[in-house]
Amino acid sequence: MFRILTPKTVVSAHCDLPCGVYDPAQARIEATSVLAMQKKAAANDDPLYKTRAEIIIHERAGLAKHHLAVLWHDYFKPEHFEKYPELHDLINKTIKAGSGTGARGSLDPATGQALLDGIDAVAKIFWETKGKEYVLPQSADQA
Amino acid sequence: MFRILTPKTVVSAHCDLPCGVYDPAQARIEATSVLAMQKKAAANDDPLYKTRAEIIIHERAGLAKHHLAVLWHDYFKPEHFEKYPELHDLINKTIKAGSGTGARGSLDPATGQALLDGIDAVAKIFWETKGKEYVLPQSADQA
Amino acid sequence: MFRILTPKTVVSAHCDLPCGVYDPAQARIEATSVLAMQKKAAANDDPLYKTRAEIIIHERAGLAKHHLAVLWHDYFKPEHFEKYPELHDLINKTIKAGSGTGARGSLDPATGQALLDGIDAVAKIFWETKGKEYVLPQSADQA
Amino acid sequence: MFRILTPKTVVSAHCDLPCGVYDPAQARIEATSVLAMQKKAAANDDPLYKTRAEIIIHERAGLAKHHLAVLWHDYFKPEHFEKYPELHDLINKTIKAGSGTGARGSLDPATGQALLDGIDAVAKIFWETKGKEYVLPQSADQA
Amino acid sequence: MFRILTPKTVVSAHCDLPCGVYDPAQARIEATSVLAMQKKAAANDDPLYKTRAEIIIHERAGLAKHHLAVLWHDYFKPEHFEKYPELHDLINKTIKAGSGTGARGSLDPATGQALLDGIDAVAKIFWETKGKEYVLPQSADQA
Amino acid sequence: MFRILTPKTVVSAHCDLPCGVYDPAQARIEATSVLAMQKKAAANDDPLYKTRAEIIIHERAGLAKHHLAVLWHDYFKPEHFEKYPELHDLINKTIKAGSGTGARGSLDPATGQALLDGIDAVAKIFWETKGKEYVLPQSADQA
Repeated sequence: MFRILTPKTVVSAHCDLPCGVYDPAQARIEATSVLAMQKKAAANDDPLYKTRAEIIIHERAGLAKHHLAVLWHDYFKPEHFEKYPELHDLINKTIKAGSGTGARGSLDPATGQALLDGIDAVAKIFWETKGKEYVLPQSADQA
Repeated sequence: MFRILTPKTVVSAHCDLPCGVYDPAQARIEATSVLAMQKKAAANDDPLYKTRAEIIIHERAGLAKHHLAVLWHDYFKPEHFEKYPELHDLINKTIKAGSGTGARGSLDPATGQALLDGIDAVAKIFWETKGKEYVLPQSADQA
Repeated sequence: MFRILTPKTVVSAHCDLPCGVYDPAQARIEATSVLAMQKKAAANDDPLYKTRAEIIIHERAGLAKHHLAVLWHDYFKPEHFEKYPELHDLINKTIKAGSGTGARGSLDPATGQALLDGIDAVAKIFWETKGKEYVLPQSADQA
Repeated sequence: MFRILTPKTVVSAHCDLPCGVYDPAQARIEATSVLAMQKKAAANDDPLYKTRAEIIIHERAGLAKHHLAVLWHDYFKPEHFEKYPELHDLINKTIKAGSGTGARGSLDPATGQALLDGIDAVAKIFWETKGKEYVLPQSADQA
Repeated sequence: MFRILTPKTVVSAHCDLPCGVYDPAQARIEATSVLAMQKKAAANDDPLYKTRAEIIIHERAGLAKHHLAVLWHDYFKPEHFEKYPELHDLINKTIKAGSGTGARGSLDPATGQALLDGIDAVAKIFWETKGKEYVLPQSADQA
Repeated sequence: MFRILTPKTVVSAHCDLPCGVYDPAQARIEATSVLAMQKKAAANDDPLYKTRAEIIIHERAGLAKHHLAVLWHDYFKPEHFEKYPELHDLINKTIKAGSGTGARGSLDPATGQALLDGIDAVAKIFWETKGKEYVLPQSADQA
């Protein structure tokens, strides 16, 4: 009823056509927003404020997840996954940390911090693959 | 300058809160559109037609990529990746098959078929984790 | 001040160019999410949880509405509306069942079920126009 | 395998909750853009210009279709469809006039004009249901 | 580390290529929705209703902001800003009136009215630049 | 027919509620993609490649415009516009440099560079308002 994908079928995919420009800062800026909102919502008892905080956290965490997924499937190549065997797991768990069971569904700043920590770990590897040391985006202290 | 994400930090993430409903059919329907468009564009010499085909392929392949990424980070859990050690790679390569270096950047139906084959392989594992045999969506023969 | 659209003006529109691939499963999977969220929210007293449930229901019901509208205006043709005189009304009422006055604005699972029932009735006709019997998507029992 | 939607199930849907504000001008402004782009593209031989025209027409016609669908399923009520038996058909054909087989897939200004004519016919009925005479949006002469 | 943008660099930008069609009615219709929602939410004590109102206000105010920004950067030209020296400020403050510190983050209809007033003031100038007198969209009394 | 917005009406808007986190790097990363695509498209004669380049440039430049507009209306406050009287104009011209008459409608890398230069000038002021010196995002050399 369906054909099995053999590794051979898609292994020829390589980046000889429109590669975008990648920067883990995109995910980190959104995650910084999530953490900042969580801290503000924790210090505010107005139900409308908390509702709005959750609407914005939902948006921002969703964008952070998207940017991380793009790094995983568009930037990182088979040779990166060979060199960093934990990379699949690290990105997968970091995106989960930005999901409904993590920062996206919580007003606890610890969950936003866990998401940021994961992004920083991914970013460190990202810049290593380019022979550079990771520098935090300038907005890092806004949360 | 940044803290390393230790597995301990996020391993507690589990799906006890808003889990969505998942179905690989979402990715497959979009990929079927991609393949159908590629076949039509191959048989049409009008430049406007080809431009429109590429606009729609860009949209549809982008949605297929998104639905696959959602399966990877929202549905599949650590125990699935343990049971299917090739799963990370399979999904990663399938999303790449739907990217600019694959079906999203080509009018060659072979690339659309490679994307479909990858989705079917992911779907087979998806349904195995639920103890069911994978059945193709009813729209499978529309391409 | 404006010209009246005579049926003659647009009746020549027929699908000889980029037709997409259609499958009512797209609307049904989103509606299944709506119903699943309503059931979970009903069993949970946390205000944040209920807020998040409503955010997600708003998203998913909006997508279900969109997929139904696409079937109505992109897939179904004049000959279908002739053969099924109730079809306009059925789709219109089903989309209304997914709107703010229906499942999109309620946490009552009965509204989510009404949306699903409408989608199934539309899907039955959809597959009849293709000479096939409608089979529920595999994700049907996830709600 | 699925329950049939009886009219009884959803007929109770009426607008006693969050109704939006509706105005056919939303669809008309987008359609005016479509027509304006078609006229400019017809007078320009640069392939990049034509590609950009089609990208923008694809966006704008898609928005016009969406706004028309919203009028159909969110604004118009059963009593309107009873009073205007041709209304389902008129909206359906107008959206088709904005689809790939109509203005969305063509650089011929006649297709953009057909879309505008359909929107005007819908708008005339819309304002009749509110006891007003339809006035064209101020941007009507920008195409 | 970076080059300073001299006015000379971009002053050559003028509208000789794909200009869209512009109409302040787009922002006004969305803002009318915001005000209508605020009035309804004020008269309803159901927490779910208020949550839904805020979700919709967030969407609609976001669209109003977007349409205003488009007028500012895509429609208005240097000569307009010269002729109306207060125009930058007026649009900037109007968009802020539709932001989280204004109507987007409040259920107080006074904030929605302030947004509408700002849009009307922008629209008056917009139509003056085209030698016309501003007429409110027909949907103006729906809030 | 409409009330004029007096400055008094909205001047009370200040950021005491959900402020996001802002970083000009968001606009710059997208603009870097635009420039990279323009360079690649210039070196490639395949019509499909050029079409795809324009689709992606259209997306990326649109995002750069959006991020710049957000800085203008959500981050910058009246006191900033007083201190930097050229700021309105600088941002307005930079967004125009990313529009259809600029980088968004061209494959000439000079237009992408002009957009980047504008963003850098805005970013320099942005960081000055925070008492910091602007540092280019790490992805700056990917174009």
